Amino acid sequence: MRPSGRKTDQMRKVSFERNFSKHAEGSCLVKFGDTHVLCTASLEEKTPPWLRNSGKGWVTAEYGMLPRATGERMRREAAAGKQGGRTQEIQRLIGRSLRAVVDLTALGEKQITIDCDVIQADGGTRTASITGAWIALYDCLKWMEARGMIKVDKVLKDHVAAISCGIFASQAVIDLDYLEDSAAETDANFVITGTGGIVEIQGTAEGKPFTEEEFASLMALAKSGIAELVDLQKQAIA
Amino acid sequence: MRPSGRKTDQMRKVSFERNFSKHAEGSCLVKFGDTHVLCTASLEEKTPPWLRNSGKGWVTAEYGMLPRATGERMRREAAAGKQGGRTQEIQRLIGRSLRAVVDLTALGEKQITIDCDVIQADGGTRTASITGAWIALYDCLKWMEARGMIKVDKVLKDHVAAISCGIFASQAVIDLDYLEDSAAETDANFVITGTGGIVEIQGTAEGKPFTEEEFASLMALAKSGIAELVDLQKQAIA
Amino acid sequence: MRPSGRKTDQMRKVSFERNFSKHAEGSCLVKFGDTHVLCTASLEEKTPPWLRNSGKGWVTAEYGMLPRATGERMRREAAAGKQGGRTQEIQRLIGRSLRAVVDLTALGEKQITIDCDVIQADGGTRTASITGAWIALYDCLKWMEARGMIKVDKVLKDHVAAISCGIFASQAVIDLDYLEDSAAETDANFVITGTGGIVEIQGTAEGKPFTEEEFASLMALAKSGIAELVDLQKQAIA
Amino acid sequence: MRPSGRKTDQMRKVSFERNFSKHAEGSCLVKFGDTHVLCTASLEEKTPPWLRNSGKGWVTAEYGMLPRATGERMRREAAAGKQGGRTQEIQRLIGRSLRAVVDLTALGEKQITIDCDVIQADGGTRTASITGAWIALYDCLKWMEARGMIKVDKVLKDHVAAISCGIFASQAVIDLDYLEDSAAETDANFVITGTGGIVEIQGTAEGKPFTEEEFASLMALAKSGIAELVDLQKQAIA
Amino acid sequence: MRPSGRKTDQMRKVSFERNFSKHAEGSCLVKFGDTHVLCTASLEEKTPPWLRNSGKGWVTAEYGMLPRATGERMRREAAAGKQGGRTQEIQRLIGRSLRAVVDLTALGEKQITIDCDVIQADGGTRTASITGAWIALYDCLKWMEARGMIKVDKVLKDHVAAISCGIFASQAVIDLDYLEDSAAETDANFVITGTGGIVEIQGTAEGKPFTEEEFASLMALAKSGIAELVDLQKQAIA
Amino acid sequence: MRPSGRKTDQMRKVSFERNFSKHAEGSCLVKFGDTHVLCTASLEEKTPPWLRNSGKGWVTAEYGMLPRATGERMRREAAAGKQGGRTQEIQRLIGRSLRAVVDLTALGEKQITIDCDVIQADGGTRTASITGAWIALYDCLKWMEARGMIKVDKVLKDHVAAISCGIFASQAVIDLDYLEDSAAETDANFVITGTGGIVEIQGTAEGKPFTEEEFASLMALAKSGIAELVDLQKQAIA
Repeated sequence: MRPSGRKTDQMRKVSFERNFSKHAEGSCLVKFGDTHVLCTASLEEKTPPWLRNSGKGWVTAEYGMLPRATGERMRREAAAGKQGGRTQEIQRLIGRSLRAVVDLTALGEKQITIDCDVIQADGGTRTASITGAWIALYDCLKWMEARGMIKVDKVLKDHVAAISCGIFASQAVIDLDYLEDSAAETDANFVITGTGGIVEIQGTAEGKPFTEEEFASLMALAKSGIAELVDLQKQAIA
Repeated sequence: MRPSGRKTDQMRKVSFERNFSKHAEGSCLVKFGDTHVLCTASLEEKTPPWLRNSGKGWVTAEYGMLPRATGERMRREAAAGKQGGRTQEIQRLIGRSLRAVVDLTALGEKQITIDCDVIQADGGTRTASITGAWIALYDCLKWMEARGMIKVDKVLKDHVAAISCGIFASQAVIDLDYLEDSAAETDANFVITGTGGIVEIQGTAEGKPFTEEEFASLMALAKSGIAELVDLQKQAIA
Repeated sequence: MRPSGRKTDQMRKVSFERNFSKHAEGSCLVKFGDTHVLCTASLEEKTPPWLRNSGKGWVTAEYGMLPRATGERMRREAAAGKQGGRTQEIQRLIGRSLRAVVDLTALGEKQITIDCDVIQADGGTRTASITGAWIALYDCLKWMEARGMIKVDKVLKDHVAAISCGIFASQAVIDLDYLEDSAAETDANFVITGTGGIVEIQGTAEGKPFTEEEFASLMALAKSGIAELVDLQKQAIA
Repeated sequence: MRPSGRKTDQMRKVSFERNFSKHAEGSCLVKFGDTHVLCTASLEEKTPPWLRNSGKGWVTAEYGMLPRATGERMRREAAAGKQGGRTQEIQRLIGRSLRAVVDLTALGEKQITIDCDVIQADGGTRTASITGAWIALYDCLKWMEARGMIKVDKVLKDHVAAISCGIFASQAVIDLDYLEDSAAETDANFVITGTGGIVEIQGTAEGKPFTEEEFASLMALAKSGIAELVDLQKQAIA
Repeated sequence: MRPSGRKTDQMRKVSFERNFSKHAEGSCLVKFGDTHVLCTASLEEKTPPWLRNSGKGWVTAEYGMLPRATGERMRREAAAGKQGGRTQEIQRLIGRSLRAVVDLTALGEKQITIDCDVIQADGGTRTASITGAWIALYDCLKWMEARGMIKVDKVLKDHVAAISCGIFASQAVIDLDYLEDSAAETDANFVITGTGGIVEIQGTAEGKPFTEEEFASLMALAKSGIAELVDLQKQAIA
Repeated sequence: MRPSGRKTDQMRKVSFERNFSKHAEGSCLVKFGDTHVLCTASLEEKTPPWLRNSGKGWVTAEYGMLPRATGERMRREAAAGKQGGRTQEIQRLIGRSLRAVVDLTALGEKQITIDCDVIQADGGTRTASITGAWIALYDCLKWMEARGMIKVDKVLKDHVAAISCGIFASQAVIDLDYLEDSAAETDANFVITGTGGIVEIQGTAEGKPFTEEEFASLMALAKSGIAELVDLQKQAIA
């Protein structure tokens, strides 16, 4: 039995609150149960130095957690003077995941920065971030389209969403909350597009190594869960 | 006329959403119009080194802004590797304001850290932070009282709230929003207790210096506005 | 009785030693009793990025304390790797105070940096810094005038000086030294121009909150003291 | 055809030079073709704070690249003042991979730090690091066994090695060198134990998303390659 | 001819102003012509970690330059976030030089930190620092002796002073000022004790390499100059 | 007797392994006994800002130690977030030493960065670095000559090499290893050109001050040792 009483293939309640932020070109408060992440998309005219005069744009992401998003207060990274390794790993993952569905040439020499800030954490902050970031990115592109800057259909090639799966109490389960995440034997994150293409797989044995069969069962859960998330994204932007 | 159409002595709509955060001992989402700040209070057993074995506790604050809380995206302080001067000024102000109404000896050797994170900014983030932080602190103390650790009445001596006033278009106005703040000739922040004691005054001429009379008119507005804020705090905790 | 035996409205002996530094365009060693601050003004052709091609110049300030300026040695900020919150607060205050009396357009696209370095501290380092910085700035502008770069009268609109006042042993006193500062119930800093315009007010309750009447008595002391400081500035540049 | 002329399932020449370092308790210069990594294992009595008095030890890793290990000189991280996100990702991966085969309780309250420093890079530095780190760790444990501190068989539960696989020119290939890595459509790293347990999987679509079938072909290559690497480890310590 | 008109073996006017600082246990404003350095000695009960329970004390030094001590304003190291290589080199040199004449066991488990802050620079700041630091150290030890903590004669074994010599316009000259220093072909710093023991020699060819004979002539100048400096130290403490 | 059994004027076995690195324009693994340093020379088109449009190039150096190059593991400077004072001192010395034999105008507006990374340390890492760096620099210049960019004979004016000498057990000895270095009473480093010109002398009394005669004996040893090192450099590039 899962601590939350969910079935093994049952995700938490997922919701998207678009236009959460008054200022950002696109924004979305995404909730995977008690995990709440504010995703904002900011359009800037500048691009990174290595893309100057290439005709290409860039999509990048930054990730942060409010100090008391978690059960115990964590030190504020701004006060510590640097972003930790986990933060950097996650923000690199979010950026790669989004770029996988963006045509950077069609975007043109602009940069969109997605900020994913965890307001409250209960496991799965990176997967919620990616899934919500797609909505913020979509709304930012819509904002640009409304101003004649781009065509959304040319720039955004597909949906992308993410989910975690893991072996908890010897069973493959989807969308681990914090209690499950802390106790899971294996933890894997999947980033998959709307048409089922795999963008990123990260599987880690937390305790003992896992087998190919176990991994296959996680991937099966993920594919089905992400299809559901993509449906929810579609409803959210309808 | 004020850009928002408000009267000179009219504050924006103020609201407090208690228990916004699942994890914190106390928390409050405070809104002064479009300025939204999440305040969380975290209880820790440790105290700063200079208080060890003194029998006294400590209340401190940290302040941050999400990168896209503002009209243009600001660089994330964690990425920049340090907190800016403005951030440090504000978090020191919040901490001093709260300590002015706390009996640190009655608190005992514990530390409460108030995190004020600006989700959306439209002027007055520091005054909203102080006003909301008091609610988060109150709820944290209630949490402690429920566990027999303290008596709220012994620790928390009074309410405290804050408001900005300024000279805008040659008129003294209360609770400046961003448009007013950017154009104000004089800007002042007042921190005042429930019984009308002044905790902090910060007045700054942005353009030409101001007169003692102008300052007196700002203080009159502030006293009345803070009395109103304290009433709202009382309703919120009722 | 004040520890120093001074009357409540009696400032410490104030002196200005102009041209203390061989290299700087303007410089002044200012003493408020045992508080000694070296102020230097450095002219640079560059301006901050946000003023490029605006035709406007900039006046900014940096503040530092020698590690053993104080009763106990403090850690050197260069060794600590960052400037503390107090340092940043003070240097921002000095810069704002000076800019309040400078016509940045008349200055033209140049930057003057005022460095205020505390050689010895005995309370009131920020107010001594502002008061001495005005002399250094004046001499720097004179240096520029001698080279046909500007007219001092066009650039420098007024004097500016600063003083601290506080409630010590239940009495309003002016120009607190370290002993008074550590024990004061309320501490306020005032920055006022030669013509009596208020540039900055910062009042803080250190112990219990203060009343409007107490604050009025502090401001009365400050106005009279600053008039005296401005007279001393006038004598110094005569 | 692969740029190096290798077959799709052919790894580069792999070698281990044990005891490369005079000082370290264990050390190994590992070469995967032109990728050369020096791995040293350092035993320290202290453990991380969160393990104090737990009876458990810790194995951790740090990773670095000499500035001219690469085709173009990279900025030295010590001069830049921080470790980049990629560095942190890799060193966290190495640490996790080794801990997966170590019994931390049998190790006792000690810490072993594995430093993996890339002397020359030609793709696959993280997989070479993990594979060589295991040798350094083994030799460090042997050193401890020789002093009666532990039993190697109790502490080290299995071999662990790593290999990269990718889709290059539409074909699944193993052990990508730099030329392949830069042009690969999909890049995956696998960390697998001597008994075939999977410790870590990281698959990333560099260009277009990949399919489950493609991923299966990468995993098949990886399993066979790692079996070979484990054999080489066994020969090296024989 | 030297720019200053001095003879080749003529040092600048040297003066020591003892007790320059009200707070420090020992202090001295040393002037070598227009080079002015404030040296303070601070006594602390703590010692560095590696000396704990060794019965030995420590003498260390820190060095800094006010931003406008020089002809052009230099960036403040506290603002830059780190001490530069030159600063670290100099402060390490000052510390070593002083420790060469101190019996650390006789000092006992205490630390004396000498801060050398350059108020105005005109070449030779490190040699002036060492020479003045000895006075500050002496006065700090006298302060300790007056409190029965140590015997100065047991702790301080000798005088130590420093001077720069160089080849300027093909001639060996002593005590280079900034103009000479910038144009010197060879620059050497000597640290020598009161009894003529050599503590430190640092010679650097700025342009073409120098010969052993040239170096001998620099050393001869240095020995004579330092004898003179030691005499001045003796007069200063008489 | 020396711990290694060497005669007082006997250096350790010295070797140079050219082209150690596949990528660098010049590279050399230099060994002074158990001290092993990898020196790479990297050519870059950019020059430091102060040389732009001067027609001159620049040669600079960076120095690092692998964490376990030493008997006890040292903290990685990249993890600590800054280069220590010793590192900065050494890299500045290496850069100055090389520039003493380079005609920067003949080099043209290019920068060569020499990275000296200590793979294993047993005393004398800075002298080995300088001696090996010359080889790496030579090979880099040869690489440039082969591409018609410069003439080696115009750019490289002489050899340069370095050796340490010290007073160990009351005797002057050359090329101190770690055991000697830790116990030496006096330690001196000499940098001398192929034609016997002195580039740098650094002598430090570790215990009691040294005499001019002792220093002369160290210099005599150094001159003879460096002549030998230059011969070895000549053989290496023959």
